[in-house]
Amino acid sequence: MGAAQQMNGKGMDKRTDMKRRVTALRAELKTLGVEGMVVPHEDEYQNEFIPAHAERLAWLTGFTGSAGTAVVMADKAALFVDGRYDLQAAGQVDGDIFEVHNIADKRAHEWTAENVPRGAGIAYDPWLHPLAFRDLWQRRLAPAGAGLRPLAANPIDRLWADRPARPQGKAVPHPLDYAGQPASEKLAAVAQAVRTGGARAVLVTALDSVAWLFNIRGSDGPFTPVVEARALVMEDGTARLYIDPAKRGDELAAHLGAAVALRTPEQLAEDLKALAAGQAVMADPNVIPLALVQAVEDAGGRILPADDPCLLPRALKNPVELEGMRQAHRRDGVALTRFLAWLDQRMAGNGVDELTAADELERLRAEGEHFRGLSFDTIAGSGPNGAVIHYRATPETNRVLGEGELFLVDSGGQYLDGTTDVTRTMAIGQPTAEQKDRFTRVLKGHIALGAARFPKGTSGSHLDSLARHALWAAGLDYDHGTGHGVGSYLNVHEGPQRISKRGGDVALQPGMVVSNEPGYYQPGDFGIRIESLVAVREEPAAGRPFYSFETLTLAPIDRRLIDVALLSAEERDWLNAYHARVWEEISPSLDAAAKDWLREATLPL
Amino acid sequence: MGAAQQMNGKGMDKRTDMKRRVTALRAELKTLGVEGMVVPHEDEYQNEFIPAHAERLAWLTGFTGSAGTAVVMADKAALFVDGRYDLQAAGQVDGDIFEVHNIADKRAHEWTAENVPRGAGIAYDPWLHPLAFRDLWQRRLAPAGAGLRPLAANPIDRLWADRPARPQGKAVPHPLDYAGQPASEKLAAVAQAVRTGGARAVLVTALDSVAWLFNIRGSDGPFTPVVEARALVMEDGTARLYIDPAKRGDELAAHLGAAVALRTPEQLAEDLKALAAGQAVMADPNVIPLALVQAVEDAGGRILPADDPCLLPRALKNPVELEGMRQAHRRDGVALTRFLAWLDQRMAGNGVDELTAADELERLRAEGEHFRGLSFDTIAGSGPNGAVIHYRATPETNRVLGEGELFLVDSGGQYLDGTTDVTRTMAIGQPTAEQKDRFTRVLKGHIALGAARFPKGTSGSHLDSLARHALWAAGLDYDHGTGHGVGSYLNVHEGPQRISKRGGDVALQPGMVVSNEPGYYQPGDFGIRIESLVAVREEPAAGRPFYSFETLTLAPIDRRLIDVALLSAEERDWLNAYHARVWEEISPSLDAAAKDWLREATLPL
Repeated sequence: MGAAQQMNGKGMDKRTDMKRRVTALRAELKTLGVEGMVVPHEDEYQNEFIPAHAERLAWLTGFTGSAGTAVVMADKAALFVDGRYDLQAAGQVDGDIFEVHNIADKRAHEWTAENVPRGAGIAYDPWLHPLAFRDLWQRRLAPAGAGLRPLAANPIDRLWADRPARPQGKAVPHPLDYAGQPASEKLAAVAQAVRTGGARAVLVTALDSVAWLFNIRGSDGPFTPVVEARALVMEDGTARLYIDPAKRGDELAAHLGAAVALRTPEQLAEDLKALAAGQAVMADPNVIPLALVQAVEDAGGRILPADDPCLLPRALKNPVELEGMRQAHRRDGVALTRFLAWLDQRMAGNGVDELTAADELERLRAEGEHFRGLSFDTIAGSGPNGAVIHYRATPETNRVLGEGELFLVDSGGQYLDGTTDVTRTMAIGQPTAEQKDRFTRVLKGHIALGAARFPKGTSGSHLDSLARHALWAAGLDYDHGTGHGVGSYLNVHEGPQRISKRGGDVALQPGMVVSNEPGYYQPGDFGIRIESLVAVREEPAAGRPFYSFETLTLAPIDRRLIDVALLSAEERDWLNAYHARVWEEISPSLDAAAKDWLREATLPL
Repeated sequence: MGAAQQMNGKGMDKRTDMKRRVTALRAELKTLGVEGMVVPHEDEYQNEFIPAHAERLAWLTGFTGSAGTAVVMADKAALFVDGRYDLQAAGQVDGDIFEVHNIADKRAHEWTAENVPRGAGIAYDPWLHPLAFRDLWQRRLAPAGAGLRPLAANPIDRLWADRPARPQGKAVPHPLDYAGQPASEKLAAVAQAVRTGGARAVLVTALDSVAWLFNIRGSDGPFTPVVEARALVMEDGTARLYIDPAKRGDELAAHLGAAVALRTPEQLAEDLKALAAGQAVMADPNVIPLALVQAVEDAGGRILPADDPCLLPRALKNPVELEGMRQAHRRDGVALTRFLAWLDQRMAGNGVDELTAADELERLRAEGEHFRGLSFDTIAGSGPNGAVIHYRATPETNRVLGEGELFLVDSGGQYLDGTTDVTRTMAIGQPTAEQKDRFTRVLKGHIALGAARFPKGTSGSHLDSLARHALWAAGLDYDHGTGHGVGSYLNVHEGPQRISKRGGDVALQPGMVVSNEPGYYQPGDFGIRIESLVAVREEPAAGRPFYSFETLTLAPIDRRLIDVALLSAEERDWLNAYHARVWEEISPSLDAAAKDWLREATLPL
């Protein structure tokens, strides 16, 4: 049976499954007396990467992207995704069941308000939606005469026959040698924020915040070493960690010490009720589940909406974390350099395909000390697949790398001492003049940002144009942000800083780690991205404080794709100095063949 | 009597005056039964440039800056200014009477809340404060147990013996040959905004909006051809213009036509009350006087806060206005070029001082067709005075231009067909290497912004870093925005677009005119600014819409201050092309001597 037939066969089965599932859900909703239900991608922790048992949206619709919302009503249903995913969603979802909308044109609450009968109720699972959801939807549904109905149990969980088990990872201490700051100090700072905010306690519900705050790690998130738990930090600096007893590692209690009480997840709602009577509990409205908001409100209390107090201090990496990031990036650079050398060698002989390449890169990373897994699904896109920004190779889309194509590999690792995220784009054979022109413009943006000096108070949205300037000059651009924060052996995407046209208003401060990843995508043809992680550092200046970026990522940038005539002398100097540093730091860990390859790859332009 | 003695004599008189005035105001406040009073710089139209009779803050405090607020309480008083003015305020104000605070450290409502006795009232003139003032102050005063008290009449107006008369200018039609669009079309668009906003009418209170909307101009504003009037635009596109009968020019009624009713200013409150019963009237909360808000609220109505609907359409200059701007800039460039030639010639012989230079420039501008006056007070700062960003030469500060100094001249004209605003910085004699380095970095920023291409949707805050990048690279910056909108024979500063680190979130669109004015200031030494006005235009691009800037300003940039080695080939090309254009467009209007000067000033680098 050929690949094409297999696809069709699987496609038909899948469609029948989806029809059955939606029909079963509609029957459940009818029994519950509601008109429809909102099904988000998110789980009860508002994670970016959710475990398999929480993939309710994929179970119901077939759509496997990392963001989206479905609404199922009695006689119609729709899926809402952003611009990264509209093509993928249209391909994965049965158009007879679900309309697919790009949220730039229509958002789920707008569509629901337009289609809901007056007097009807729209159900939702209050564990899967944060506080902010309720305000947004109620404001839109009320004029339509409809309302929201929280459900005591999620009907999908009942219908999902072969649902995977919840992750069973244990919470283990994250040693001070990597964390760099004791949990007691972090708790004291968070307690200060509670007092300043005039609250009694803060509820910390983001898993990476819990992990950072208590210096613990786990294995509950795909790609992210978090453990499922929530915490209350009291105004006096004591805390309560709500975690399943089965998930408590042997050393946990001793590690946490006397100031942190261990409680079960079920005790959280009770504790909130007791605390909340007339008193404010701070929580991030974009993360706290409505189920817990309801517990507080039932007790006559209120949630004081506030930014997660862990966000900013977690983003400001301490010297130990920064040194860990440097070490992790050296090991990661060795793996990536070995991969690039392997690729060139293999290409000279026989074809390599995307999946083989991604597997080889993971194998090489896994040989590195302290490696704990990938930090996200490797994006290995050749030719036209490189132009799909969030591409993930599957057996159906897998391509053999072809002569004259570009190969984009965006990948990263989780190491005990740091998290990496790097993209390199390679020429397979002889690149065209257009490919070189586009690559060089992306590189000019990468250098302009990487080499920038900027005064204290400058935000990422303010720097973003530096990375786009050379592309703009040719009437070109890219449709994604230029940089995101990165955790320290935590999430590969974290806030609050960003380098982006919009939403990047937090000032960059020393210790913050961000990616520098301009790109260019020619649909159906090729994709280019050059990504390194950088850390904000102080820069000597005469007057006001100035900052600059230290580049953490160490891997060669393909010289064969550079149109040297387009670079200024300063840009050439920057690239040569970077390559000299890559050679110096990476070459001692390479075998002879890879060393020879790297020497050539890092020769001055 | 020498100049120094005169100053001291005047200084002493002034101090005695101020003490008397504050004492008299305190007596009035006591009679009124209030603890204190807020005295803003603004007049009842929230103008940037206020007429002499509205300079209440200067009368009371001696401070003559263009923004600030005083609070006078029974036993203390303070003046609050922004960073542009803290030095000037400290010099002008009697420190025995007024504390001077930089609003970055302490704002007026904060200070008042900290110093007001419980139960006390703080008075304000409800014509001088917009709606937004009340919310801000009440929120801060309420916890202190104090409140705001609107006054029926301003006690300063009673105390001010030799108060200048109100401006008596008449409203005259602004011909379609300059306005480019009939008022009826503008009214129809504003009425559409009223209907979209779900309101019955919109109250237009900004003087430049009234002038733009009805295609009328006047002479009530210093530097700005506006006339004091307010307007209501109804949902059906009819309008009422509230204007003193004495200010109605002969042609006004015929120009306005049947759809616009002429009413007296006193009728506005009545009309608002009649309209407002249960109905919403839209108004800009940052401009509408609280006195009118109160009228609406007394009638049981409410103000629907909304951006001034004239803001965006006024900013999008139509083709006739753009062509007028080009013509006005050509005449303005001829005047400025003649001035620069005169300056070089005079410097070769004998010394010129700042005031003489400013007068000569105004004289030359006044010879241009359609000239109607300056668009703001000329800033002519030599040596250390050039480093004072909002410098205005006075007999006390006037300096003779000295060898080895820089001379910064920021000036502009009002022409019937357009408004100009231009800054050039000239070397007097031989510049230092440092001066040339700084000037060239400012020029690189000016060129990077002026030559930028950018996609639709890009805002000014996003482009701002392009103008700072070369300064940042040397650890330098400037403490002001990079660009502001400019009116068409209207305000030299207008919104909504800006090019700035903060607050520049409105997307740049074709037809918008903005300034491009990076600078560098070395306190006590020299100041540099290079400013040209540019218009956003469409730029041919393959995919999405791209825009670029057309430079409107035509005047040479001092080649003697350029360190050519710091410029890239593209930057040199840009400057040479600009100078070739200046030569081509300006030289035909010059006499032989000025022409010779311009030929040399525009030679290719």
